[in-house]
Amino acid sequence: MNLHLSATAPGKALVPHYIPAGNECELFELAWKRKLPLLLKGPTGCGKTRFVSHMAARLGLPLSTVSCHDDLAAADLTGRYLLKGGDTVWVDGPLTRAVRNGGVCYLDEVVEARKDVAVVLHPLTDDRRILPLERTGETLEAPAEFMLVVSYNPGYQNILKALKPSTKQRFVAIEFDFLPKEQEIAIVSAESGLEERHVAPLVNLAQRLRAMKGHDLEEGVSTRLLVYCASLIESGLTPREAISAAMIEPLTDDPDVRLALREVAGAIIP
Amino acid sequence: MNLHLSATAPGKALVPHYIPAGNECELFELAWKRKLPLLLKGPTGCGKTRFVSHMAARLGLPLSTVSCHDDLAAADLTGRYLLKGGDTVWVDGPLTRAVRNGGVCYLDEVVEARKDVAVVLHPLTDDRRILPLERTGETLEAPAEFMLVVSYNPGYQNILKALKPSTKQRFVAIEFDFLPKEQEIAIVSAESGLEERHVAPLVNLAQRLRAMKGHDLEEGVSTRLLVYCASLIESGLTPREAISAAMIEPLTDDPDVRLALREVAGAIIP
Amino acid sequence: MNLHLSATAPGKALVPHYIPAGNECELFELAWKRKLPLLLKGPTGCGKTRFVSHMAARLGLPLSTVSCHDDLAAADLTGRYLLKGGDTVWVDGPLTRAVRNGGVCYLDEVVEARKDVAVVLHPLTDDRRILPLERTGETLEAPAEFMLVVSYNPGYQNILKALKPSTKQRFVAIEFDFLPKEQEIAIVSAESGLEERHVAPLVNLAQRLRAMKGHDLEEGVSTRLLVYCASLIESGLTPREAISAAMIEPLTDDPDVRLALREVAGAIIP
Amino acid sequence: MNLHLSATAPGKALVPHYIPAGNECELFELAWKRKLPLLLKGPTGCGKTRFVSHMAARLGLPLSTVSCHDDLAAADLTGRYLLKGGDTVWVDGPLTRAVRNGGVCYLDEVVEARKDVAVVLHPLTDDRRILPLERTGETLEAPAEFMLVVSYNPGYQNILKALKPSTKQRFVAIEFDFLPKEQEIAIVSAESGLEERHVAPLVNLAQRLRAMKGHDLEEGVSTRLLVYCASLIESGLTPREAISAAMIEPLTDDPDVRLALREVAGAIIP
Amino acid sequence: MNLHLSATAPGKALVPHYIPAGNECELFELAWKRKLPLLLKGPTGCGKTRFVSHMAARLGLPLSTVSCHDDLAAADLTGRYLLKGGDTVWVDGPLTRAVRNGGVCYLDEVVEARKDVAVVLHPLTDDRRILPLERTGETLEAPAEFMLVVSYNPGYQNILKALKPSTKQRFVAIEFDFLPKEQEIAIVSAESGLEERHVAPLVNLAQRLRAMKGHDLEEGVSTRLLVYCASLIESGLTPREAISAAMIEPLTDDPDVRLALREVAGAIIP
Amino acid sequence: MNLHLSATAPGKALVPHYIPAGNECELFELAWKRKLPLLLKGPTGCGKTRFVSHMAARLGLPLSTVSCHDDLAAADLTGRYLLKGGDTVWVDGPLTRAVRNGGVCYLDEVVEARKDVAVVLHPLTDDRRILPLERTGETLEAPAEFMLVVSYNPGYQNILKALKPSTKQRFVAIEFDFLPKEQEIAIVSAESGLEERHVAPLVNLAQRLRAMKGHDLEEGVSTRLLVYCASLIESGLTPREAISAAMIEPLTDDPDVRLALREVAGAIIP
Repeated sequence: MNLHLSATAPGKALVPHYIPAGNECELFELAWKRKLPLLLKGPTGCGKTRFVSHMAARLGLPLSTVSCHDDLAAADLTGRYLLKGGDTVWVDGPLTRAVRNGGVCYLDEVVEARKDVAVVLHPLTDDRRILPLERTGETLEAPAEFMLVVSYNPGYQNILKALKPSTKQRFVAIEFDFLPKEQEIAIVSAESGLEERHVAPLVNLAQRLRAMKGHDLEEGVSTRLLVYCASLIESGLTPREAISAAMIEPLTDDPDVRLALREVAGAIIP
Repeated sequence: MNLHLSATAPGKALVPHYIPAGNECELFELAWKRKLPLLLKGPTGCGKTRFVSHMAARLGLPLSTVSCHDDLAAADLTGRYLLKGGDTVWVDGPLTRAVRNGGVCYLDEVVEARKDVAVVLHPLTDDRRILPLERTGETLEAPAEFMLVVSYNPGYQNILKALKPSTKQRFVAIEFDFLPKEQEIAIVSAESGLEERHVAPLVNLAQRLRAMKGHDLEEGVSTRLLVYCASLIESGLTPREAISAAMIEPLTDDPDVRLALREVAGAIIP
Repeated sequence: MNLHLSATAPGKALVPHYIPAGNECELFELAWKRKLPLLLKGPTGCGKTRFVSHMAARLGLPLSTVSCHDDLAAADLTGRYLLKGGDTVWVDGPLTRAVRNGGVCYLDEVVEARKDVAVVLHPLTDDRRILPLERTGETLEAPAEFMLVVSYNPGYQNILKALKPSTKQRFVAIEFDFLPKEQEIAIVSAESGLEERHVAPLVNLAQRLRAMKGHDLEEGVSTRLLVYCASLIESGLTPREAISAAMIEPLTDDPDVRLALREVAGAIIP
Repeated sequence: MNLHLSATAPGKALVPHYIPAGNECELFELAWKRKLPLLLKGPTGCGKTRFVSHMAARLGLPLSTVSCHDDLAAADLTGRYLLKGGDTVWVDGPLTRAVRNGGVCYLDEVVEARKDVAVVLHPLTDDRRILPLERTGETLEAPAEFMLVVSYNPGYQNILKALKPSTKQRFVAIEFDFLPKEQEIAIVSAESGLEERHVAPLVNLAQRLRAMKGHDLEEGVSTRLLVYCASLIESGLTPREAISAAMIEPLTDDPDVRLALREVAGAIIP
Repeated sequence: MNLHLSATAPGKALVPHYIPAGNECELFELAWKRKLPLLLKGPTGCGKTRFVSHMAARLGLPLSTVSCHDDLAAADLTGRYLLKGGDTVWVDGPLTRAVRNGGVCYLDEVVEARKDVAVVLHPLTDDRRILPLERTGETLEAPAEFMLVVSYNPGYQNILKALKPSTKQRFVAIEFDFLPKEQEIAIVSAESGLEERHVAPLVNLAQRLRAMKGHDLEEGVSTRLLVYCASLIESGLTPREAISAAMIEPLTDDPDVRLALREVAGAIIP
Repeated sequence: MNLHLSATAPGKALVPHYIPAGNECELFELAWKRKLPLLLKGPTGCGKTRFVSHMAARLGLPLSTVSCHDDLAAADLTGRYLLKGGDTVWVDGPLTRAVRNGGVCYLDEVVEARKDVAVVLHPLTDDRRILPLERTGETLEAPAEFMLVVSYNPGYQNILKALKPSTKQRFVAIEFDFLPKEQEIAIVSAESGLEERHVAPLVNLAQRLRAMKGHDLEEGVSTRLLVYCASLIESGLTPREAISAAMIEPLTDDPDVRLALREVAGAIIP
């Protein structure tokens, strides 16, 4: 299943551009209606965050995005006591706010978070749909307007950071991948302002580099870097300079790999 | 021993639906009468939480559920001093509240909690049935109305996270497993609204996938995912799409395993 | 040396029932008179805690029991500064209270505690018998009425958690073990209300299971589980069901071991 | 691509001297215009910090530099609650100040920082250009005047400290290296006051020592150490003494390597 | 060099009994006069603590003893800020008090302490004899009446816990060992009240057990345990029971080693 | 390069005695004039601290010495917020005080400190010479009177504790070693009061023991221990006793090595 970053404005103002590649919009909407939590899987920079923004806007829901990281703990999501005027006052975290007010709460790269986060999600992702706040003694019931979306990149093989089956099996899941060639050319051209005929060889190059993933490269070139590269060319940099700055240097620090990438680039875009 | 998720309303209002598969209800009630703590063992999503909700409601007891996690410490259960108006004020945790007021305290996935939690449970699970609060200097005696229930999934082989024998030997224990085929079909149909004849092949598929546990899959398909899948089909998604989103993608990130699961699914539900 | 859990009330009211199996009561009393600290060693659920309760009551001494765990630090025993009305106020821990007021301080499973606990005990367990409170600048001298008792289960082979020789050599030590057969039958019958002739085969089974310790089982069946099992039978459960819930499921999660235990049980109690 | 440390004052007062070796100034300015974040890679002491100072001044932007280290956490960049008059008051960190007020925020040696820092950068480095402050509930939108620049030294092979591809692929990147010989002689002479003819052999020696990197030396001689060395000679120390103090002792503690370096030095500057 | 625990009262009241086995008293006094810090090395329970008490009393100096442990940090020795009436007030630690007021500060088992403790000692143990208190900005000069004494047991081979040479080389050092037989008999008899002729076989047994150190036993029997054992016999326990409780159980948890020790004991004291 | 600990008072009162062995005084002064930071390398007890005291006094600069250790963090050098009267008040650390007021800040054993310390030093050790205080939002410019000196002992091979090249290359460096024989005899005699003819064999012994470094000894005998030893002899101890207490016991805990050292000592000083 793919996704499109659309440069043409949709009918509804303020909805981030997005053209569905498969049934992902239908699936999101069904999950929303049936109150099922959603899991998005896919590589770096393929548009998962944009997709969530698009769907939240389309369904008219407020969106709260949390970038997860190694030190993100349950309390960062649920809330904390803070000192105010000598008292401890409870302050809701982003997840608690979303449960109280309704809307989409999106936990980006959820596998990065500390283990206690995953388990805090459990009572929200079964038929109870509750968020117990042990520290305040409250138990919040998620309203019909609340939806939980999480994502991660299965490309990183880190056994310390996998979701437990007891967590994964609480989500409906969608696999994302890079766009097919013609669609990616259209997106990159629209986002950067560079003509499609100049974008096409860059996308060719990106596909070559993505095929090297797992061998010399840890990760393939994202659509985002393609947009960077095209933007720099559109602003006047030579393709050679732009490819070096946006498609080679961000991918590797290894002199040998860098040389190999330059040769690949030189063969495609002399 | 199995358990049923019943879709037909029982005689008593507000009691979560549950049809016993074995003697688990009788055993829970006897443990309650003899003031013995109870341990539930079983795989992800087989209905342990629902069973506890059912029994607590049936016995007319308040229920306090705590999802345990890596950072859950004894103080999260017993209580803490918080600053209020410049003073430190003691605030009871969920376990202390349950001991003070009576009722069932259910610690879900107790092996995930920090080690000090297990040991805090010791004086509550021998003939003393006391909860010493070292920080306040109190020693609470559990009333006859208090019952401690804990659960974990023995399927995860994590030696760092096993309960110590000195803890385990303080509990009467029940083993849970997935439902027999006919019962599971009835439950999934009732919960999702999908006709039984369309649910039957999904349950067949689930049983095939559960047999792969330990080989290609870390954990078999839960009844919960079956309900998700049936719900999506009932809402209009094709079986192929629903199975992908609810029974394949949540189980694996491995391209080869995913392909194998699709073949299994294709053979059963063309 | 063994110990008995006596169901018959002793001469003195409020003294927990206990019938000595060896010289342990005499040794406790001598250690008390000579102001020597005492170390109790033995398996899970063999009655160490009950013995200390019995002796403290018999000698007319208040008893303070602390269940040690991974996060128990010296300050949990000695005390802490807490905020009260804007000031920091010192609050004694259970060990400090016992030293100030006299009485038995019992540290259960002392090897579980953090390392600083063991060393806090040093000045209390040599001829100085003092407790220096570095944080307050006080040095308390233990009164004649103070006695320190600690316990641990040597069956767990955890080199990270052994007592250092410099700590162990500060204690007089007693080894505990399970009761001889006839005594255990009497105790279990008295505690559960089940007739001795029905208890006898359960004790036979327990002795078979204890012999498997170190092979298939990490720890043998405790007297406590025998009491649980007999209680369930006395309440109406079949022996087969009661043995499963109280003598097999709490001992193992391994399907093969569970099957073996059931066969052993079936051979003894058909 | 190289960079020059220029000793001749540029047209604009207060702009740190810098002569571009390649297209790095043009690339910085284009990235600035297109609102793309920038990543600088290169060895110790080759002038990355000076380059950023130069560009910030040239573009008339305030510059905020943060030296990253092992304990630098997200909160050190975004801000913290501090106690003031009994209340907790939020105090912006340097990144938040730069986002609020505009300007260049430069995170030097960003790979040294704790993992949560990299992820805090994510929403600032995609098309959202936002900084969510979870603790205060604010979401700041970066103004057009904000630019994020980060650097690291790819020469240290520390897999624990590499940037994740999902972070790296959010930056346009430039590789820096040491200056070509003639340019380095001019810079060192200008910075130290030592005549170029006396600086030339020092630069020759530096190039010899840089070639030893990866064999006997962990890192080559920086331009900074060359300036130190020339300064000491200009102040009256003999070349032999200055080279020992500024070009040999700071590079190695190994007696054999030190001897080898002295021989190399003696051959070039007798 | 040995040390004697003397049961006969010395000429001076309140001085703990001690009869020097070698030149340790002379050496302590010389170190004191020359303002040199002192390091005592030796096994568990051989009398190091008693020796320091004796010397401090003999020289008329106040003694402050700190039992070091894994969590003992520099601030536990130097002092901390505490909240009093809303202000932070500095409270001296035991080392700071000893430096301010003069006297012996004895750090028992100094290798157990956290690394920062050893380094805090550095400026106190060279010719500066100062204690800088970074937190308060003070620098205390140790008066002539201040002396630092530290000890550790070199028998534990723990490379994580060794003193660094840069710390060790700041001390004059004395090696302690167990007493010669005749002296130990006299001490144990005097301390326990048991006649020498009954103590003699216990000391013979202790020497046999000490010879097993490093083979079956981690540490030999301390003089303290011998005193315990003799005390229990003097109070009426049989030698067999007393040896089990005071000389075997505290030494080992291993059934085979225990059996071997009983055989050794039975051969010497039938 | 060596250094001398001079016993003869220099012309200027209050300047600690020091006779330069090489160009170290000249180099310190030049570094001071050119505002270059200085790194001192050398073994335990060879006089680095004394040298810094000497130079600071000679140049009329206040000296602030910080003994670094495992737990020394950047905030210990730069400062912290403390609670005063309910407010948080910033309190400068020693490094900040030195930057504000001028003078030498000497970080002894800098490699021991936590990693964040080294990086805090970076902006102070390049041409910016600034100390950014992130917590207060200040950026201090070091005055001409500020100089940073750090030291470490390269003899300890601890890869976890090496300075990074990016830190080392910010310093001019001096290597220290033990004194030549005749100078060391003079120093030890002057410091201890023992006649040179009696000191000479002790220095011979020290040189023999230093040659054993890396084989049986982790570190050679320091000049400090030689002074201790001579002091004890001057006070009346026999050479044999003094050598044992000051030159053997502080060097080793190994019985075999101790025996070997005694034989070496006995051969030189019978």
